[in-house]
Amino acid sequence: MGKRYQIDLNSDVGESYGAYTIGLDEEVIPLISSANIACGFHAGDPSVMRRTINLAKEHGVALGAHPGFPDLLGFGRRNIDATMEEIRDYVTYQIGALQGFAVSQGMKLQHVKAHGALYNMAAQDMRIAEAITESVSRLDKDLILVMLPGPKKNEVQETGRRYGIRVVFEFFADRGYNRDGNLVSRREPGAMIHDPQFAADRVLKMVTEGTIASNDGTEIEVSSDTVCVHGDNPAAVRLVKQIRERLLSSGVAITPMGQFL
Amino acid sequence: MGKRYQIDLNSDVGESYGAYTIGLDEEVIPLISSANIACGFHAGDPSVMRRTINLAKEHGVALGAHPGFPDLLGFGRRNIDATMEEIRDYVTYQIGALQGFAVSQGMKLQHVKAHGALYNMAAQDMRIAEAITESVSRLDKDLILVMLPGPKKNEVQETGRRYGIRVVFEFFADRGYNRDGNLVSRREPGAMIHDPQFAADRVLKMVTEGTIASNDGTEIEVSSDTVCVHGDNPAAVRLVKQIRERLLSSGVAITPMGQFL
Amino acid sequence: MGKRYQIDLNSDVGESYGAYTIGLDEEVIPLISSANIACGFHAGDPSVMRRTINLAKEHGVALGAHPGFPDLLGFGRRNIDATMEEIRDYVTYQIGALQGFAVSQGMKLQHVKAHGALYNMAAQDMRIAEAITESVSRLDKDLILVMLPGPKKNEVQETGRRYGIRVVFEFFADRGYNRDGNLVSRREPGAMIHDPQFAADRVLKMVTEGTIASNDGTEIEVSSDTVCVHGDNPAAVRLVKQIRERLLSSGVAITPMGQFL
Amino acid sequence: MGKRYQIDLNSDVGESYGAYTIGLDEEVIPLISSANIACGFHAGDPSVMRRTINLAKEHGVALGAHPGFPDLLGFGRRNIDATMEEIRDYVTYQIGALQGFAVSQGMKLQHVKAHGALYNMAAQDMRIAEAITESVSRLDKDLILVMLPGPKKNEVQETGRRYGIRVVFEFFADRGYNRDGNLVSRREPGAMIHDPQFAADRVLKMVTEGTIASNDGTEIEVSSDTVCVHGDNPAAVRLVKQIRERLLSSGVAITPMGQFL
Repeated sequence: MGKRYQIDLNSDVGESYGAYTIGLDEEVIPLISSANIACGFHAGDPSVMRRTINLAKEHGVALGAHPGFPDLLGFGRRNIDATMEEIRDYVTYQIGALQGFAVSQGMKLQHVKAHGALYNMAAQDMRIAEAITESVSRLDKDLILVMLPGPKKNEVQETGRRYGIRVVFEFFADRGYNRDGNLVSRREPGAMIHDPQFAADRVLKMVTEGTIASNDGTEIEVSSDTVCVHGDNPAAVRLVKQIRERLLSSGVAITPMGQFL
Repeated sequence: MGKRYQIDLNSDVGESYGAYTIGLDEEVIPLISSANIACGFHAGDPSVMRRTINLAKEHGVALGAHPGFPDLLGFGRRNIDATMEEIRDYVTYQIGALQGFAVSQGMKLQHVKAHGALYNMAAQDMRIAEAITESVSRLDKDLILVMLPGPKKNEVQETGRRYGIRVVFEFFADRGYNRDGNLVSRREPGAMIHDPQFAADRVLKMVTEGTIASNDGTEIEVSSDTVCVHGDNPAAVRLVKQIRERLLSSGVAITPMGQFL
Repeated sequence: MGKRYQIDLNSDVGESYGAYTIGLDEEVIPLISSANIACGFHAGDPSVMRRTINLAKEHGVALGAHPGFPDLLGFGRRNIDATMEEIRDYVTYQIGALQGFAVSQGMKLQHVKAHGALYNMAAQDMRIAEAITESVSRLDKDLILVMLPGPKKNEVQETGRRYGIRVVFEFFADRGYNRDGNLVSRREPGAMIHDPQFAADRVLKMVTEGTIASNDGTEIEVSSDTVCVHGDNPAAVRLVKQIRERLLSSGVAITPMGQFL
Repeated sequence: MGKRYQIDLNSDVGESYGAYTIGLDEEVIPLISSANIACGFHAGDPSVMRRTINLAKEHGVALGAHPGFPDLLGFGRRNIDATMEEIRDYVTYQIGALQGFAVSQGMKLQHVKAHGALYNMAAQDMRIAEAITESVSRLDKDLILVMLPGPKKNEVQETGRRYGIRVVFEFFADRGYNRDGNLVSRREPGAMIHDPQFAADRVLKMVTEGTIASNDGTEIEVSSDTVCVHGDNPAAVRLVKQIRERLLSSGVAITPMGQFL
């Protein structure tokens, strides 16, 4: 009997706000295993948070907090030079708020993944990575921290260990990778992968063989426990479906990361 | 050996926001036993919440959430005709966020007291009282709900029982009471009590005898486990000091309500 | 030579916010003659305001401010018991902000129409109607104030006269009217008109004959210089197209109200 | 008959928000000649803006817009990497809103001075300086733009000329200056001047002789048409009084810059 592969599919959801809708949450949530739920700072509002948790619960999808900068106008995508104290406090506040809804539904959060500018800055600036790690650690040491793989990957991992927190680096289903294992910059060709077939094949290969083809065709080693997918438009949802079917038909289980980490 | 009286003193704190300061928290927190901490909707911000919890912890003051309407501009004092779903979600979100900071400091919340317009509306409209009670109950059945005594007091109490939540009605140290036990309207003379001596005597009488002098001099029965005091100006803080000294010198213990309810 | 009929078609636009989109502005703006542009309180943001003004300018559509309550979360649809001073100040602020963009594009505002809860409250409470009228009047007496027709229509009109402001009451292309000339309540059947053909016929009749069929079939007198249409979904846009074609093919000119009032 | 010297004293005011108060506006406004009024993004609210304009009007103080980043939580002091379009739109929106209140009081704005992070960034990044200049220019070419003197002073001046806008660089009454004419960094000794006597003498010398003593005692040439003073605490207000008295008793007129530029 062979080995059973498992992978987690995560997606940013719960980003609607009041009368405003972003994302095809009802379509994408049934397809994933971990939901990164906006917490009201860059997107999301209390009622959206509750409804998103309900939807995830209904589909057996694990819950994660997706904290961002307090910048609804910029959707959390703009760098703000907040202090480390402010960042810690923003993260604590947002995770706490989401936990409130999880607990109210008899659920528990599985993970935390920062959003947008905060997420990207944490991959460049170890003080920010540490601020986020510390906040998560003080709230609940069982929370898994999902981070952006980058040049400081080892330090980020080490910071997680120091604070007693599991850190995982996600793989991007729709982004090209350079030979050195880093993402192709969005300003260069090959940054985005548009062919669902190719994307699905690549995810499967990453899961089962631990390698992918980089941008120049070289095979490189890449391993990750969670794959980031998107649900903000119909094409993105079709891509998730393709990936999901390819994985399932190849015997790979799609499972919340908390169950196998 | 005689009976030892106990009373809780609660005050709204943590209402500063960013560069803006409201309230003499550093002066009033050492004088009270329960802190109602703003949660970022009508006042307060993540950093203020953390610092307020630290201050309370340092002085052995129990923590409470003080959720309000999302109306920083109106300081939560304006009625907003939100739906019951929205109110439940606002309350859950804010308590959750504060719990995040409490847990991060190894603390636990003791109580919840709604703020301003939300607080007042809950005393008039049983649907709102129930929405708040339900949210609190789903989050943590150990939380005590502090409510405004009013004509629907019995129904509010009964709703608490139904949801498995302790409800207490607070006594106002600086407000006049009518013969029927209700507060003197702010539009009428005698609404506010300005004489610290008189106020302190009245609190002591309420605690030890279960009666106070009403506005027209009649002695009426009033009993409460927690007394609301204020820390927004130096005169208010002096009043708290006077009450505190009167109580302590008369052998009444000032204790977080969670310890004797 | 015969008489030429003219009518204004107005629509609420510019309600997107940051990454969030509401409304098919690019489709509906070319079809109307007056744009009610959100001003950043209940919807809209500075960049959306500028782009909306550009779009209106390009299509010869007159500009109007669409001020609402400061309640992005509730999209300005919730009653807030603000003071009259606050309402005056909210209206002044928002019109001023939009004027800034208009002036920057060499344009001028034609009209003001309040949004949502503020609009509805002004039809019930003369103090609010007066507060809005006064703010508009102090800013620019050439601004036309569009109001909701209701039981206090005469008083609202009289208030406009007193402040030297033209007031017009809009006609709703997609709402049923009772025999008494008031809108059919949204809780009753016949509140909404879904048949584009019928709606277009009715608008044409209102413009050319000054009468429409009320909900029970009775012909009632209704006259208005501006017709409210919507652009928030494809069906609504189709309705506007139908109305526009019916009017134009019947020789009625669709003209910004400021040109014939 | 001798030459009459004139100087403008400007101060940031109108920074209160809702229930929150910052600044001793009632004390400082009577002492200055130009008011930089917050416009609701980093501080200020519609009612505060109206009241501040009233107060300025009463004391013959000229009105200026003080636009900042949309960051009430950070009081506009944090760098946000907004696009140039966003910055132009934020500036237009805020000036427009304040103009609304000015027009409503029969007044006109005299100047614009950006706030906090936006102000500082504009002295470093010419794209931002240009974005602000362009917005001001499109709104009203009579507006004077007050900027922070710095290494790009000449380019900023030239940009103003290109857009047909007068630009003035302010002098700081309470900051030390290096030999090269730049401000002493806040991280170094001598950054702040605490001696009111010395500060007042220095302002007088700057106005009448066009020189001041730099940090190391060297006399350097400094000329400016407007001096920035503060009103956020009693000591700051005392400093303004001292400067004002010294100037007046030496025959220097304190006049809104718009009257002599």
